Amino acid sequence: MTTNEMWGGRFAQGPADIMKEINASIDFDRRLYAQDIAASKAHARMLAHRGIIAQSDADAIGHGLDQIRTEIDHGKFVFSRDLEDIHMNIEARLTDLIGEAAGRLHTARSRNDQVATDFRLWVRDSIDRMSQGLRAFQVNLIAKAAAHAGTVMPGFTHLQSAQPVTLGHHLLAYVEMAARDRARFASARACTNECPLGAAALAGTSFPIDREQTALELGFSGAMRNSLDGVSARDFALEYLSACSIMTTHLSRLAEEIVLWSSPQFRFIRLSDAFSTGSSIMPQKRNPDAAELVRAKCARVTGSLVTLLGVMKALPLSYAKDMQEDKEAVFDAADSCELALAAMTGMVDDMQINEPAMRHAAGDAFSTATDLADWIVRVLKKPFREAHHITGRIVALAEARKCGLLDLPLSEMQTVEPGITADIQSVLGLDASVASRLSFGGTAPTRVREQIGYWQERLK
Amino acid sequence: MTTNEMWGGRFAQGPADIMKEINASIDFDRRLYAQDIAASKAHARMLAHRGIIAQSDADAIGHGLDQIRTEIDHGKFVFSRDLEDIHMNIEARLTDLIGEAAGRLHTARSRNDQVATDFRLWVRDSIDRMSQGLRAFQVNLIAKAAAHAGTVMPGFTHLQSAQPVTLGHHLLAYVEMAARDRARFASARACTNECPLGAAALAGTSFPIDREQTALELGFSGAMRNSLDGVSARDFALEYLSACSIMTTHLSRLAEEIVLWSSPQFRFIRLSDAFSTGSSIMPQKRNPDAAELVRAKCARVTGSLVTLLGVMKALPLSYAKDMQEDKEAVFDAADSCELALAAMTGMVDDMQINEPAMRHAAGDAFSTATDLADWIVRVLKKPFREAHHITGRIVALAEARKCGLLDLPLSEMQTVEPGITADIQSVLGLDASVASRLSFGGTAPTRVREQIGYWQERLK
Amino acid sequence: MTTNEMWGGRFAQGPADIMKEINASIDFDRRLYAQDIAASKAHARMLAHRGIIAQSDADAIGHGLDQIRTEIDHGKFVFSRDLEDIHMNIEARLTDLIGEAAGRLHTARSRNDQVATDFRLWVRDSIDRMSQGLRAFQVNLIAKAAAHAGTVMPGFTHLQSAQPVTLGHHLLAYVEMAARDRARFASARACTNECPLGAAALAGTSFPIDREQTALELGFSGAMRNSLDGVSARDFALEYLSACSIMTTHLSRLAEEIVLWSSPQFRFIRLSDAFSTGSSIMPQKRNPDAAELVRAKCARVTGSLVTLLGVMKALPLSYAKDMQEDKEAVFDAADSCELALAAMTGMVDDMQINEPAMRHAAGDAFSTATDLADWIVRVLKKPFREAHHITGRIVALAEARKCGLLDLPLSEMQTVEPGITADIQSVLGLDASVASRLSFGGTAPTRVREQIGYWQERLK
Amino acid sequence: MTTNEMWGGRFAQGPADIMKEINASIDFDRRLYAQDIAASKAHARMLAHRGIIAQSDADAIGHGLDQIRTEIDHGKFVFSRDLEDIHMNIEARLTDLIGEAAGRLHTARSRNDQVATDFRLWVRDSIDRMSQGLRAFQVNLIAKAAAHAGTVMPGFTHLQSAQPVTLGHHLLAYVEMAARDRARFASARACTNECPLGAAALAGTSFPIDREQTALELGFSGAMRNSLDGVSARDFALEYLSACSIMTTHLSRLAEEIVLWSSPQFRFIRLSDAFSTGSSIMPQKRNPDAAELVRAKCARVTGSLVTLLGVMKALPLSYAKDMQEDKEAVFDAADSCELALAAMTGMVDDMQINEPAMRHAAGDAFSTATDLADWIVRVLKKPFREAHHITGRIVALAEARKCGLLDLPLSEMQTVEPGITADIQSVLGLDASVASRLSFGGTAPTRVREQIGYWQERLK
Repeated sequence: MTTNEMWGGRFAQGPADIMKEINASIDFDRRLYAQDIAASKAHARMLAHRGIIAQSDADAIGHGLDQIRTEIDHGKFVFSRDLEDIHMNIEARLTDLIGEAAGRLHTARSRNDQVATDFRLWVRDSIDRMSQGLRAFQVNLIAKAAAHAGTVMPGFTHLQSAQPVTLGHHLLAYVEMAARDRARFASARACTNECPLGAAALAGTSFPIDREQTALELGFSGAMRNSLDGVSARDFALEYLSACSIMTTHLSRLAEEIVLWSSPQFRFIRLSDAFSTGSSIMPQKRNPDAAELVRAKCARVTGSLVTLLGVMKALPLSYAKDMQEDKEAVFDAADSCELALAAMTGMVDDMQINEPAMRHAAGDAFSTATDLADWIVRVLKKPFREAHHITGRIVALAEARKCGLLDLPLSEMQTVEPGITADIQSVLGLDASVASRLSFGGTAPTRVREQIGYWQERLK
Repeated sequence: MTTNEMWGGRFAQGPADIMKEINASIDFDRRLYAQDIAASKAHARMLAHRGIIAQSDADAIGHGLDQIRTEIDHGKFVFSRDLEDIHMNIEARLTDLIGEAAGRLHTARSRNDQVATDFRLWVRDSIDRMSQGLRAFQVNLIAKAAAHAGTVMPGFTHLQSAQPVTLGHHLLAYVEMAARDRARFASARACTNECPLGAAALAGTSFPIDREQTALELGFSGAMRNSLDGVSARDFALEYLSACSIMTTHLSRLAEEIVLWSSPQFRFIRLSDAFSTGSSIMPQKRNPDAAELVRAKCARVTGSLVTLLGVMKALPLSYAKDMQEDKEAVFDAADSCELALAAMTGMVDDMQINEPAMRHAAGDAFSTATDLADWIVRVLKKPFREAHHITGRIVALAEARKCGLLDLPLSEMQTVEPGITADIQSVLGLDASVASRLSFGGTAPTRVREQIGYWQERLK
Repeated sequence: MTTNEMWGGRFAQGPADIMKEINASIDFDRRLYAQDIAASKAHARMLAHRGIIAQSDADAIGHGLDQIRTEIDHGKFVFSRDLEDIHMNIEARLTDLIGEAAGRLHTARSRNDQVATDFRLWVRDSIDRMSQGLRAFQVNLIAKAAAHAGTVMPGFTHLQSAQPVTLGHHLLAYVEMAARDRARFASARACTNECPLGAAALAGTSFPIDREQTALELGFSGAMRNSLDGVSARDFALEYLSACSIMTTHLSRLAEEIVLWSSPQFRFIRLSDAFSTGSSIMPQKRNPDAAELVRAKCARVTGSLVTLLGVMKALPLSYAKDMQEDKEAVFDAADSCELALAAMTGMVDDMQINEPAMRHAAGDAFSTATDLADWIVRVLKKPFREAHHITGRIVALAEARKCGLLDLPLSEMQTVEPGITADIQSVLGLDASVASRLSFGGTAPTRVREQIGYWQERLK
Repeated sequence: MTTNEMWGGRFAQGPADIMKEINASIDFDRRLYAQDIAASKAHARMLAHRGIIAQSDADAIGHGLDQIRTEIDHGKFVFSRDLEDIHMNIEARLTDLIGEAAGRLHTARSRNDQVATDFRLWVRDSIDRMSQGLRAFQVNLIAKAAAHAGTVMPGFTHLQSAQPVTLGHHLLAYVEMAARDRARFASARACTNECPLGAAALAGTSFPIDREQTALELGFSGAMRNSLDGVSARDFALEYLSACSIMTTHLSRLAEEIVLWSSPQFRFIRLSDAFSTGSSIMPQKRNPDAAELVRAKCARVTGSLVTLLGVMKALPLSYAKDMQEDKEAVFDAADSCELALAAMTGMVDDMQINEPAMRHAAGDAFSTATDLADWIVRVLKKPFREAHHITGRIVALAEARKCGLLDLPLSEMQTVEPGITADIQSVLGLDASVASRLSFGGTAPTRVREQIGYWQERLK
């Protein structure tokens, strides 16, 4: 049996080959099989419950679908391109298995609401996996942060060493981003988790169905309120892809840092063999390939988002075949995201920290100049802008003498600002600098440890 | 005074002209002036409250800032490119006005946390405008839907007439989309509404500031928990742009329908002169320019989202100058969205419905064939798939006779399926078809009116 | 043997599972096998020719590679994920087949220049297929245009009927676009067709290779002049994707027209069963699925372009693993483009033109108003702007009387402009209007037939 | 006079405020004024030449337009939003200046072909500026490369030090990219440089115009062959934006390197004060802001490309108002590109090279391991793969001893491969390594100088 036969008898001629090739979706929508079967079972049960089909038919349908599920799970199902899509492949097989009753399953529904339902279920599952993955990522970050709450490293702005911070503080920044990513997925989940089943082709149906029953049985929060919207809406997938894009943007930032930090110029970290690759021609290389790929996956996920935004733009209601392009965009993004998340989670755990290199870099480049300026404000009561000017002149002096601020003689400093006293030494050291940043959210180890505690509690 | 002077004395040489041109942001970030001033006032008050600056200085700062606000409001402020950005322009003017005390304002903050705070305040305001705009759009849709709860039109899939629906039902689909858009903006608002002020350059500060005070005074839900994150995060802007992109995708779908519906081939609606333009060469034209522009704006907003996703990809922490490109992307998208939303809201109200044309089109193309199939299932107890085949053959018969289903003699139908009785006429009419779709979310006028009631209540 | 083993002995530990999964490219880069083998054969021949390896080794390598090619062609090759990529899979199999000599093949090259070479060869082949596909599309358009050089249809602006044109003229517009698309692919081909082989890892090699020999043997225009550029450049792929995106934009415009024209509101064309699909619930539907999918593919190809632009942004030289993401973006776009092009080529041939419907629509909506205005300019010597005003008033008159311009009594016209004479009738008919547009590039059938002749000649 | 008045008298009511706001383009399309005036002058001359208007009218029009040009050049022209766009603003002013004759200018044209002509002229000018800008960029790169043809630096792959290269070689890679960028702009120019003027609204005209005359007078290669295509095509702008996107991708790669190289971890270069900025809180900072902004502009230009691809997708022929969104996307990209190009050209000249730091980094991390492997292949006749393994083991040895390859005693190497002789020292030094890469395109200073000569000749 071909799909053509399933549409009915009006079509005299079969589709052109090219038509079949562009039209068939079974090569990718087979990934919806579990969702399709679950939704069909719920639909059949509801039809029987409402007296629209016989209970015996519903039972036959249920058993047939269970068997098909098993066949697909075990790789024993033969998918056919002639049958176009996952829905028709399953229904055709159901007909083989249970005969006429199979023909009653499609009562009061259409492929339009069916695929929307399946796809929402799939996206919901993916969101749940993503949220779990983000949690695991947070857990590894927090563990690493806890081990390095007091490890001093340079805090960069413009990739210039700005002020010393702690590695723990730096890693916790990603915990925050991941938390917001989870919130975005939660929002996308709420948008996704409404049930279009029963919207039928577009207008609803005259059969006395109970949409609430199927919706709740499938774990949806309820039935969608408008059938045209039910079959036309793909904003749930767009919101999902947006959340994916933003999340991979975050991952790409950490990936960039891993690439930088494991370069010979930084040497802040070392990835183990498990997360490095060698070179076919340069035996000494330890390439952070996984981090580079995560960086690239970010662009790829954005590509998927652009695809679906472009597909949906200016589509009149209700269903249009263009929407079939929603699935590969989402599947590809989901795969990229899960890979990227798992790889980053692994790398965070894997990376060995080179504390001396970090500390050495933190001490470079006058990174405590701000502390000097702040001391002048605090102790000498100068306005900040004036303190800033004074500090600039002192830095220029140290630069000219090729020494650090700590090594610049007090007398030299006093040529710029006579009020400076020996107490200034107390703020120019790295540990003192870091420890002093006690404002809420600041890099002081005390604050970092408080935040670690907060997150450990919250992730329980 | 130039910014260069504000950075302090270490820079011997001024910036190259091209550097000044690429670097200066005052041409666009002046839009942040109200937010910048509000945040500075809150900051100064907190500094005084915590004893970091004198109350008299804080008062002077407050009054100076109020005056600057007035100057800018009234177009009396001279912006200077040499002063680079809105922060420096305002601070320099403050120095003119109040002298040395101005130099104390920048204590315990940096432009990094300052701009992040300003920008979040701006985005938050924009979100609130967008939400109000969406509400107004919903109100107009509901009013039009109420007037046309029973107006029959063709329901399209693949731009083919599929089944009759009501215009009210169709318009309510957009009310649903707008509701989800509002939910997305609410999620973006929550992400935006956390305060980075006090993160200083990146590491927090050693001054005993009270971040909660400034956060709450500025209406934020609280202070951000990590200072590195505070100056580096732009996911709030990305989430905002995502919400904008999805919303304009929805608007573009209705815009496309307005273009189609006002074409001479459809003639479903007529836009008044207020929303049409003429042609410089073809005097008879009534062009739906506003709808076309809304359609295009959708792509433009996506462009802004792509821009910012690209900007943020793989940026190491914390602040980098790349982030300066966040503002124009957001401002441009905000302007496009507000225009598009207002234009659509206006057009929904403006469009005159050509009921006869809609009804005539609905009756075309065998649009009640599904009703015939459903009757066969319901009355003759055939499986749906078989009923579908029978219907296909009857449609082919009508097509060959060039008549509609209602006009096909019963005897002809019976040649295909002898069980069909005269009762079939009761389901083949447009009004009967529409009225029968009583499932929840269906197109039956009864259901549509219930939904209108639901929305009127909800939007109160 | 695993790749790890191929890198050499320094790596103590194997890669993490997730690393293997994110890193392996064999699942997609196997599509490069023919190119990889061709390039390796050319490389081995050159190495022997320059005395770098023995001729006997080169011969063994050549035969081994031929056998591998046959194995892959016939689906007998077992690809291994442990071997990461197509290069390693082939080299490992070559080692199985010919032993030690296989280890000499990689002399004076690296995977970096190898993959760049393979990929350029693949893209070049794809460009050639695309150009042929565009030619076939042009041929079908011209044939249909020739059959309808005089078929009158409405010319639309803003989807409003503006002036009558001929269908032949309309279709030839796409021939022009396709010609420019071919020019773009030709430009992309020139960029692609330079050979990086011999750039080795990044710096060139100390072996006395002859890059010109391999370049020319592989059909390249020459060897790339800079080895760092050779392994780092992907602008050829970006230019290819740009050409693809612009081409599918053109295809999407015609696809949109096919969707519109086959709607019941237009009925300008009818697609045969070969290019339509039916509905599972509405037996009367003839859905233009292929056109809708082409429309959507356009967005998908743009997504691939965005992906690769994002991947390449800000990558420091030379090779980075991020670039591995170039291939799936290109392969996916190539597949989409080839499908879309073939489908459109088929549909152009397939579509049956409903000439009466087109003519009827062309006569609608005062579409010869411009002819009236032009007559006033030409005959009454009024300035165009004044003629435009006069015409506007006459159209308003006809609109009020619910008649067309041809049916408006002369006396009525003269109330607006007394100078109008009965001669005006000669320009208000559809055929007269179309025939009068004799300017170069105009819609007059004479001009259209000239253009058809031009194109038939050019495509010979 | 308002545009509404120019359309003619049929519109009873003025446009809604929001309509005016979304519709008016004068705020941005005023940038086309020089092109609009030039095209109008050529059009008027042609009309007179063909006897369509009187020579005296053409003269009056010409003088009037010249005056308007002067007014706009000197900022004396008052643009009006009520007049919508640049065309109407100029025509209205022309009417003020010369009266009735102004109304004859619009004979045989429409705003549709007019704006397409103007815009093509603008894009053509921009392409010419871009090509000159790229040439200047190449000149600076070559000059710097000439000064550093023998300066050794690390060649990176995966941001790991791979093999030593010369800075001259590295910079020449960008010369190659820029050359291909110029080729892309040349291709875009050819696509752009065809004249649509005379296409009129969409169908051509019945006036006996001479399109070749206006085309050639305006410097176009000829008149477009299809009037529908003439007013509908925007692929020239898309191709332009693609070329811009790819060019800025190249610039972003060098920008990234400038950011990296000027970081304290690399210290390869130092930007002067002219291209650095300071920090408002950290006086010691030298931020490479311009490079960061170039990096970001790359994403912004991609955003513009995405915008216009999205706008044009699925637009039915011929002109639609959506296309008005072409200009801001192009203008914004053009501005970004010109800025980015000028900034990079300046930075290339500005950057001071820290040769010792580059050389030191090049010597790090066993970067001559490939030379060792190649020596084993060349001298000991081992297959490359075996030589690779041997080298890997020697590197591991050196790593364990914490020394470089040059410092590893010969006897130690011989424990891994007894065949190694003292001659090995001759290939392990940086200069020897670099000098040995004599293959065409290789990094040997000899080759680099040859390439510099080639480029100096070519750019003459």
